[in-house]
Amino acid sequence: MAGNTFGTLFAVTTFGESHGPAIGCVIDGCPPGVEIAPADFVADLERRATGKSRHTSQRREADEVEILSGVYQGRTTGTPIALLIRNTDARSKDYSNIEETFRPGHADYTYWQKYGIRDPRGGGRSSARETTMRVAAAVIAKRWLAEHYGIRVRAYLAQLGEWKPRAIDWEVVEDNPFFWPDAEMVGQLEEYMDSLRKSGDSVGARVTVVAEGVPVGWGEPIYGKLDAELAAALMSINAVKGVEIGAGFDSVCQLGTEHRDEITPEGFLSNNAGGILGGISSGQDVICSIALKPTSSLRLPGRSVNKAGEIVEVVTKGRHDPCVGIRATPIAEAMVALVLMDQALRHRAQCADVGPQHPLIPSQA
Amino acid sequence: MAGNTFGTLFAVTTFGESHGPAIGCVIDGCPPGVEIAPADFVADLERRATGKSRHTSQRREADEVEILSGVYQGRTTGTPIALLIRNTDARSKDYSNIEETFRPGHADYTYWQKYGIRDPRGGGRSSARETTMRVAAAVIAKRWLAEHYGIRVRAYLAQLGEWKPRAIDWEVVEDNPFFWPDAEMVGQLEEYMDSLRKSGDSVGARVTVVAEGVPVGWGEPIYGKLDAELAAALMSINAVKGVEIGAGFDSVCQLGTEHRDEITPEGFLSNNAGGILGGISSGQDVICSIALKPTSSLRLPGRSVNKAGEIVEVVTKGRHDPCVGIRATPIAEAMVALVLMDQALRHRAQCADVGPQHPLIPSQA
Amino acid sequence: MAGNTFGTLFAVTTFGESHGPAIGCVIDGCPPGVEIAPADFVADLERRATGKSRHTSQRREADEVEILSGVYQGRTTGTPIALLIRNTDARSKDYSNIEETFRPGHADYTYWQKYGIRDPRGGGRSSARETTMRVAAAVIAKRWLAEHYGIRVRAYLAQLGEWKPRAIDWEVVEDNPFFWPDAEMVGQLEEYMDSLRKSGDSVGARVTVVAEGVPVGWGEPIYGKLDAELAAALMSINAVKGVEIGAGFDSVCQLGTEHRDEITPEGFLSNNAGGILGGISSGQDVICSIALKPTSSLRLPGRSVNKAGEIVEVVTKGRHDPCVGIRATPIAEAMVALVLMDQALRHRAQCADVGPQHPLIPSQA
Amino acid sequence: MAGNTFGTLFAVTTFGESHGPAIGCVIDGCPPGVEIAPADFVADLERRATGKSRHTSQRREADEVEILSGVYQGRTTGTPIALLIRNTDARSKDYSNIEETFRPGHADYTYWQKYGIRDPRGGGRSSARETTMRVAAAVIAKRWLAEHYGIRVRAYLAQLGEWKPRAIDWEVVEDNPFFWPDAEMVGQLEEYMDSLRKSGDSVGARVTVVAEGVPVGWGEPIYGKLDAELAAALMSINAVKGVEIGAGFDSVCQLGTEHRDEITPEGFLSNNAGGILGGISSGQDVICSIALKPTSSLRLPGRSVNKAGEIVEVVTKGRHDPCVGIRATPIAEAMVALVLMDQALRHRAQCADVGPQHPLIPSQA
Repeated sequence: MAGNTFGTLFAVTTFGESHGPAIGCVIDGCPPGVEIAPADFVADLERRATGKSRHTSQRREADEVEILSGVYQGRTTGTPIALLIRNTDARSKDYSNIEETFRPGHADYTYWQKYGIRDPRGGGRSSARETTMRVAAAVIAKRWLAEHYGIRVRAYLAQLGEWKPRAIDWEVVEDNPFFWPDAEMVGQLEEYMDSLRKSGDSVGARVTVVAEGVPVGWGEPIYGKLDAELAAALMSINAVKGVEIGAGFDSVCQLGTEHRDEITPEGFLSNNAGGILGGISSGQDVICSIALKPTSSLRLPGRSVNKAGEIVEVVTKGRHDPCVGIRATPIAEAMVALVLMDQALRHRAQCADVGPQHPLIPSQA
Repeated sequence: MAGNTFGTLFAVTTFGESHGPAIGCVIDGCPPGVEIAPADFVADLERRATGKSRHTSQRREADEVEILSGVYQGRTTGTPIALLIRNTDARSKDYSNIEETFRPGHADYTYWQKYGIRDPRGGGRSSARETTMRVAAAVIAKRWLAEHYGIRVRAYLAQLGEWKPRAIDWEVVEDNPFFWPDAEMVGQLEEYMDSLRKSGDSVGARVTVVAEGVPVGWGEPIYGKLDAELAAALMSINAVKGVEIGAGFDSVCQLGTEHRDEITPEGFLSNNAGGILGGISSGQDVICSIALKPTSSLRLPGRSVNKAGEIVEVVTKGRHDPCVGIRATPIAEAMVALVLMDQALRHRAQCADVGPQHPLIPSQA
Repeated sequence: MAGNTFGTLFAVTTFGESHGPAIGCVIDGCPPGVEIAPADFVADLERRATGKSRHTSQRREADEVEILSGVYQGRTTGTPIALLIRNTDARSKDYSNIEETFRPGHADYTYWQKYGIRDPRGGGRSSARETTMRVAAAVIAKRWLAEHYGIRVRAYLAQLGEWKPRAIDWEVVEDNPFFWPDAEMVGQLEEYMDSLRKSGDSVGARVTVVAEGVPVGWGEPIYGKLDAELAAALMSINAVKGVEIGAGFDSVCQLGTEHRDEITPEGFLSNNAGGILGGISSGQDVICSIALKPTSSLRLPGRSVNKAGEIVEVVTKGRHDPCVGIRATPIAEAMVALVLMDQALRHRAQCADVGPQHPLIPSQA
Repeated sequence: MAGNTFGTLFAVTTFGESHGPAIGCVIDGCPPGVEIAPADFVADLERRATGKSRHTSQRREADEVEILSGVYQGRTTGTPIALLIRNTDARSKDYSNIEETFRPGHADYTYWQKYGIRDPRGGGRSSARETTMRVAAAVIAKRWLAEHYGIRVRAYLAQLGEWKPRAIDWEVVEDNPFFWPDAEMVGQLEEYMDSLRKSGDSVGARVTVVAEGVPVGWGEPIYGKLDAELAAALMSINAVKGVEIGAGFDSVCQLGTEHRDEITPEGFLSNNAGGILGGISSGQDVICSIALKPTSSLRLPGRSVNKAGEIVEVVTKGRHDPCVGIRATPIAEAMVALVLMDQALRHRAQCADVGPQHPLIPSQA
């Protein structure tokens, strides 16, 4: 209830502050028999890592995952899997100034009001550092989903400020520091990001996640709908201000004849639904997008108040992203995987005996 | 886990199919002492009711709420409150055709695949009829929120197809059949709706909900964030394809200096955040918007398949809305109220001793 | 969280007060395809019913179950099943005296203190009338468990005051008003009960439940252990003051060599464990017992206080059981069935791929 | 749902295997502002520790608690508190024999059947080592309960085999290795335990927990009753086979006039209820007892089978308790504290505005 657990049957509880001794998570409900080792986390944590390129935050954490429990002889045992990452890079510096001031766009003021106390070091619990554990937990979920259903969850940066890709090429997404699906534009984006960094300002972004291979039938209506759970999962990511499924807000201007995805024996003729009908997966690709606000921590001074209610000027120095949206890409991917994992287990609890009934409508015509 | 309960401490479990004997809900966790009587539900159910005007579905249900439990001498007792509405208008007709066919844009196919069986009468469980109970439950929540915190939750139709209001005037929202905030445009909308109805097509819409008076400090980070819960709540409404908090998808193109809501001792200078920072309410108005897809049931024929995998043509006859988004307005309002109610109780469980700390930042400069 | 829901994946939420308009429940998570009709509830509700014989309470309720949702063409659809029973026998009488007085051994005082308000009519929510819905929900659970695993859950009265059966004969349990397993003693019990009734006093009882056919592997360690869930389920029954699994409190005086159930290829050599090891079913019979306190409502006057803090004398007139333990028998059976049902679904969520591994240890040598 | 979380609003998730790298827990929902430091755990962990005396297991763990999160400048912040203890004493030895064999009275067989894989080292997850984290979490709960309500939770060994204390003297409970409340008998018990150890056998025990100062009104009827939650909590402790509230199984032979706790303006005249009426605390002492089975691991050979289904003889060598019940004493105390903590938060969520209403019935006449 206090909000640090995600999922019900594949339940991930995270803990840790940005500059505390460690961050970690406990995964309860993972099916037994999944092969997992510390090395399996490296690639995805590296993708999420701050400091990946000059275009994201300069912080460098080793982010070495220690498996504390739930794995025996390289395989999960069905008992809780605890993962731990020590915060090696937490510089001990003077936070007394930050402690008294509420940075605009941050959770400083709200945490203080809610709890009467807050850990100001690096954003404390509200830091995006917490998302490391989402990515780690999703490594296990993605493996299970791939092995059991051939599901593949991927994400790309779908917009950076006004910039939109002119092509969606999955091949190049992981080959540039922006998770950008259009190779030809990468140079332009680099220039834009450099100019942003120079100006001291930041910009928003949009990320799209696509899950292929999701079988028909997942999702628990009415309130545990697949799209409702995706919306919560994605909105819980730092800086997210909007979530879309399929056509999303474009649906507002669509006509019914345009939006409804007609069906033929060869498959659906379109996918405005984003692979979800009535809260249940349809067998099509599950597609969702999120809006990320621009980084709030800026070199350009902003007005605020301190605990005494006095006017203060806030200027952020040091390492920060001009676009937090970029590294949200693997995090969004992770959250979609966690939702699917949970729904997979929930589905087989209630409907293990049912399963898809033929003739199946193929995923796409 | 099977998804028919909303909320954790103010937990609303709904039941019932569109054309079954009844729909209802059980509210568990309502604080004792709230005055409530059957008459209190009439106004809001009427607002949501199909058949309110010629611009929404022609179905007419009495929607009389019976209070089965949890209320003694006109006040809630802290025990579960069961509400029941008999389905008086469920015409017994032949559903054998619908039973075999999967309507495009509906949950027919996915329910059948998930459960191996489905109640085809009027959409069964996936019908928007279920949302009646959300509105009913929210009547109690809104009363409690108003009495304890002076909170007011309201909603308006913020877009209908390409039409956008040129003014936001709360005074007129409840005075026209569209929940439209711009009185001067109502005539145009009526014409547009009539033309849509004539054409047999439908259109999408956008609804905005504003909650005033929400105290600073509500929301349970990390996964129970106020915005995450709002996203799930709103996405769970039938036909919703997108959710925004505050600036929403406009954040993508904003610069950091533009988006971050600066603070002065007189209050926040803007509200791009939509009243939520780090998943916790800031004391500003909580603002969220949703995108609703156009009605899928159309007089214009659409292609689909039946259970045998054969090509069929689907044509919807009888009563249906050309824009389901309109009557989603009071439903969205209800869901926001339910989220706030739940967060209120969760907040006082953990932080009853804390409360807002002065100097408070005023809601708006 | 407010406590009116039992179970997690087969979640039963009950509502209703003893003398309110109705009692009912919503079952969320029932697998689709279970055949169920109103007539299926008759037998078990009759077993639980007050008024079954002169040895239990004289109240007579029709207890006709109406199925409001979740069943289509005689089979469950996977959507919530709402069951409703109208309180036809609720006499409108003057409760003003009871309203002011706290009956010893009842929840009058504690409900009033907790909620500041209570429905005094017939015990309100704290009445054993609520257990009717547990029995009703368990009818569905027992059917599913029987069909899928051949599980049979039965219970008998294992002690009535000082009286203990000299034989356990399942054949006779349902053939006498005491669920007594020893036919030869029934006459003596009748005499004893008559004498109790004459004296105006009451007595405690002990009930034993046996579940046969439970497969090895059910139960969720550490806190969702099968025995922990059974303990909660059984302790939640009105008047229960103790729960035992297997040898229970006899274990205190046993030696390890005596208690541990040795194993041979032909099966376990004893069942002190009550069919549960480490919180997980072992494949042996699951056996548990409960202690029930004597009825608190007596014709013999008892001392108490009223809301004004004044001394009052409490005398109960009218219909009440001299031994509430008797009719707890089918209720205890029902709760064990509900626990098993829930654990069955939880097990297949996490371990659907595993299943019992041969060679199985047979249930009993 | 997978069972490793205890509590709903003060939610403790434990992880770790007996001989894995570490054990730990995450506490989510702890109110902010509680002072806590690693040193605060020492005393209670020492009480629970194996190796406290020659009468319990000889294993020696440092059991140093590291606080990984949720505490800033010595006070809880409202964010999750992660506690970690490294398993320093886990000897690397050959477990291949144990891996193939199912020890009678242990969870070896059931874990293997449930999960298809198990960590055999020292009992893996089913080891009582897990209970260390319950005691650690309860340190925080007990502090909060004491500070906010003056609640004190204590426990003593109420029976050891056939031995029962002739006096209950709280002063001496913590002064002997048996948590025995009768100083004069300690010498006899030592002799008895030595003889047991020599014989290679073990014996059961009974532990009683008393919580003083619990205010009237805690507990969530119907299924979240205080006694139901206590039953689950206590039954989840390793080796527990029975739970009693108040008079417990003695209620079976009591008459109603004997059992019902009459009330006077000076207080209740007895406490057969164990401080709970209708599942809600009455303001009297909350009293519960548990039965613990004798240790299953014995030097005396026992019959069993191995994975191949062959007959094997099981003999336990090395460190083990002749009576596991003794060290269950602080664990039972811890579980009662965790239940009360959770109910305290749940109560104030729903009934914060109500509070006890005068005139209160005093705890005891």
